[in-house]
Amino acid sequence: MTAHPNEIAAMRRALAVAANGPRGFNPQVGAVILSPAGDVLAEGWHRGSGTAHAEVDALSKLRPEQTRGATAVVSLEPCNHTGRTGPCAQALIDAGISRVVYAVDDPGDDSSHGADRLRAAGVDVVSGVLGDQAREVIDSWLAVQRLGRPHVTVKWAQSLDGRVAAADGTSQWITGPASRADVHRRRALADAIVAGTGTVLADDPALTARTPEGDLLPDQPTPVVIGEREVPEGALLRRHPKPFEQYSGRDLPGVLAHLRQAGVQRVFVEGGPTLASAFIRAGLVDEILTYVAPVLLGSGESGDHPAIGAIGVDTIGAAPRLALQSVERLGDDILLVSTPVPIPSPAR
Amino acid sequence: MTAHPNEIAAMRRALAVAANGPRGFNPQVGAVILSPAGDVLAEGWHRGSGTAHAEVDALSKLRPEQTRGATAVVSLEPCNHTGRTGPCAQALIDAGISRVVYAVDDPGDDSSHGADRLRAAGVDVVSGVLGDQAREVIDSWLAVQRLGRPHVTVKWAQSLDGRVAAADGTSQWITGPASRADVHRRRALADAIVAGTGTVLADDPALTARTPEGDLLPDQPTPVVIGEREVPEGALLRRHPKPFEQYSGRDLPGVLAHLRQAGVQRVFVEGGPTLASAFIRAGLVDEILTYVAPVLLGSGESGDHPAIGAIGVDTIGAAPRLALQSVERLGDDILLVSTPVPIPSPAR
Ligand SMILES: NC(=O)c1ccc[n+]([C@@H]2O[C@H](COP(=O)([O-])OP(=O)(O)OC[C@H]3O[C@@H](n4cnc5c(N)ncnc54)[C@H](OP(=O)(O)O)[C@@H]3O)[C@@H](O)[C@H]2O)c1
Ligand SMILES: NC(=O)c1ccc[n+]([C@@H]2O[C@H](COP(=O)([O-])OP(=O)(O)OC[C@H]3O[C@@H](n4cnc5c(N)ncnc54)[C@H](OP(=O)(O)O)[C@@H]3O)[C@@H](O)[C@H]2O)c1
Repeated sequence: MTAHPNEIAAMRRALAVAANGPRGFNPQVGAVILSPAGDVLAEGWHRGSGTAHAEVDALSKLRPEQTRGATAVVSLEPCNHTGRTGPCAQALIDAGISRVVYAVDDPGDDSSHGADRLRAAGVDVVSGVLGDQAREVIDSWLAVQRLGRPHVTVKWAQSLDGRVAAADGTSQWITGPASRADVHRRRALADAIVAGTGTVLADDPALTARTPEGDLLPDQPTPVVIGEREVPEGALLRRHPKPFEQYSGRDLPGVLAHLRQAGVQRVFVEGGPTLASAFIRAGLVDEILTYVAPVLLGSGESGDHPAIGAIGVDTIGAAPRLALQSVERLGDDILLVSTPVPIPSPAR
Repeated sequence: MTAHPNEIAAMRRALAVAANGPRGFNPQVGAVILSPAGDVLAEGWHRGSGTAHAEVDALSKLRPEQTRGATAVVSLEPCNHTGRTGPCAQALIDAGISRVVYAVDDPGDDSSHGADRLRAAGVDVVSGVLGDQAREVIDSWLAVQRLGRPHVTVKWAQSLDGRVAAADGTSQWITGPASRADVHRRRALADAIVAGTGTVLADDPALTARTPEGDLLPDQPTPVVIGEREVPEGALLRRHPKPFEQYSGRDLPGVLAHLRQAGVQRVFVEGGPTLASAFIRAGLVDEILTYVAPVLLGSGESGDHPAIGAIGVDTIGAAPRLALQSVERLGDDILLVSTPVPIPSPAR
């Protein structure tokens, strides 16, 4: 079965209204109810954890006689899960909906198979309509479902020879303005930006996402600090438009689980070297952004400041391999984007 | 004054016969003598240090009555220098040559101004004919004249985080086959390939330039080892088609001066880290090839193996800046080619 042109148009609308809902623990989902003649009867969207799912929100705007025999167009497979809201598949059946068109299969173990329940009840079901566009809208949420934790990007800036500072610890302006602008742009795509106490104490970073002119970008990720040491009273971080969260201790999976519960889908880890290395060592990295400045720092008598320290690799065979996704020139610098290559499980 | 078409054709021929001469301390130069009617009377080329220059070689094939009123087409400005061969400008005047067409100005302090001497003697002189092509032929020789030493390329292969080995020292196959093939191709362009005793003892490298199938490429740079420790009796290096040269001690400018005297125009430094860092610290590097493998090595309890060690940079302002000339993907790896940016002399 395939979708009719007015159903595809309704799906486009469903994807548009999905964006009215908040990014967070639950996905952004939109729904449109069409009359048997193909006219739009109602729209709905999901307003976040604990509130009605999109299709139920749309149904709630209609009288029972309107929903009978109608078509529901939804951007995500109606759930089959009795959570805080009851299964949507059953709500659609109860409302007498005779046809359901959806875009993306529900990836959840508990919530999926809503389509099966609908079909078993005699409802026409069409799936995969505008699937790619719909997946893009909830891309980060889907990643969270797949990973079981937020998606983690680790960023660092280094010299060609992999250092973040000269022997005496000085490091200002390793990379140029184009790289810094790129970092700010990418920060704004994240829900949380994470730094270690080492960086907070050494650099007093604002942890805001700004334009090259220094203005705040509209979307500000929540600033997060990991480590026991206290953030100083006068720290710039305390002037961030959002209050920062601090996690004491070294339990990175615990921090990520907590952030997930708080609706964080994308985490941007901005260092320093100790924290970046800890994320790598723990296998909690999904994307690595390496900004390489064309400069050599070497090591001096007074110190060595590698971008990456102890990651638990003792021998070459144990080194995490990456797949280079892109290479981009940014002014005098380059940005290398890479993703970890999963370690093949040993043959049995 | 501009060159006639038959003079341009003769220059093309001069460039072709130049290649008959050896690359070495002296440039590869070709010459063609044309009759007043524009017919080719003779060709000549320079056969290396201490032998006749190209124009004198060509003149020597003609009787005096043939050279009178003839045109000499030469790929390099006739010299004005009484070395082992006497000034060519004077030889052309003595032979009664009435017109000289050349491609590239002689860059030497002692040998230049041959064109002035010719003009003073009433000879027509046209310069810059096929200058770009001619410069390409003697590119490396011109670099040696400019630098006062051979051109030095330093190559290393590193992990994304700037290491050459894992904590335990293992380093096999950091980069892939495409990178290794590229290294062999570039080795063959050099006149000498240089390694430190550390690498010779650790890796037992053959220091040959080979095809991906393992066959020797036709041009083999001379293998050079720097350092006091002895090359072991059974070292692969002792089976290289050319006997290796060893320089004891740490006098890199001295080694380069010696190599220049031996006709070496291009030196390819292949490490290891100690030697590469020493060349950088001494400011004796003209080109850096960094092969970056998409892998992380970090540092371990048992050791840290940075690609670049002590280069004398104590503070960020003193770091040598590079200009990134190209970024190329080679299989899973990338090759970054960079050149040092000259440090601006302080304002007075
Ligand atoms: N080039 C770049 O991209 C970049 C980016 C950021 C910073 N930096 C530079 O990095 C330097 C600071 O480096 P850093 O490594 O000290 O700072 P860091 O990584 O920001 O902070 C290290 C601290 O993080 C805490 N931490 C939390 N979880 C941890 C875990 N699982 N394992 C280990 N530590 C954990 C610890 O703090 P407690 O001891 O308080 O518990 C630890 O001391 C500064 O000089 C800064 O300029 C460079
Ligand atoms: N990734 C790569 O591209 C690459 C390339 C080559 C080697 N490697 C690795 O590098 C390791 C060897 O490293 P290495 O640093 O010991 O080897 P190295 O740089 O090849 O040799 C170091 C030695 O060079 C001599 N030397 C000559 N001139 C010097 C100067 N001006 N300053 C200091 N030393 C000078 C000294 O030898 P004496 O003490 O004998 O006088 C010194 O001990 C091996 O594990 C090898 O696998 C990696």
